[in-house]
Amino acid sequence: KIDCSNGMKKSGPKAEKEKIIAATKVFSKAYMDNDFETIAQSYTTDAKIFPNNADIISGREAIKERWMSGSGTKILHHELTPLEIKFFGDYAHDYGYYQGKSENKDGRVDHWKGKYVVIWKKEEGTWKMYLDIWNRIRD
Amino acid sequence: KIDCSNGMKKSGPKAEKEKIIAATKVFSKAYMDNDFETIAQSYTTDAKIFPNNADIISGREAIKERWMSGSGTKILHHELTPLEIKFFGDYAHDYGYYQGKSENKDGRVDHWKGKYVVIWKKEEGTWKMYLDIWNRIRD
Repeated sequence: KIDCSNGMKKSGPKAEKEKIIAATKVFSKAYMDNDFETIAQSYTTDAKIFPNNADIISGREAIKERWMSGSGTKILHHELTPLEIKFFGDYAHDYGYYQGKSENKDGRVDHWKGKYVVIWKKEEGTWKMYLDIWNRIRD
Repeated sequence: KIDCSNGMKKSGPKAEKEKIIAATKVFSKAYMDNDFETIAQSYTTDAKIFPNNADIISGREAIKERWMSGSGTKILHHELTPLEIKFFGDYAHDYGYYQGKSENKDGRVDHWKGKYVVIWKKEEGTWKMYLDIWNRIRD
């Protein structure tokens, strides 16, 4: 019996964890920069996202369009705080908090925070999001 | 190198998948029955749930209290539709849809549906929810 639940496999090599944390920072920067191609590349081709009040959005292209649909809002700040990243071979699960600041078209600045669960998948040596679900924490 | 991403480990033995599907049905029945002890036992002791507009709720007791806090609403129907369950040793990820029907204190009946991601963990032979996050689909 192959045990995938113990040792380095479970806790994840430190280097892999750092790669995922780096990937979250790439995502946050791309989100602040309106760089939707980098956002799209943060997901696997078969990724799914689960935005509140919407159906499951499936596939990199549809996900890119979804993120582009919010581009009227200027993202002033975006940051993820992972609380746990657990590795299972080429997959990992990750949960934690996100927070950000945005400026609406009318100039109003909003601060927001929430929580997320992400399933990461390593594709050709690069960690990408396969499942991405989040929701807000009430102010 | 141990490969946890191929073969039976990945797709999960059919029997394990059936156990998780059975566990979702136990949860739904308990939710309809206001059976909060069974709901609590559906989670690992260190589980986390991520309800919309709330902070992360951590630990079986706190999770039980959270579910009890909604007991003024009568759950007439609750059903989960898993779209994918992937196994990684004693963990599995699962995503899909939920739907339900409830009756408020004032007698109004609501229909609702949403989507979820659950990380399951097998503890002493029983699959329990370790991470449970969901949000609504707009009507």
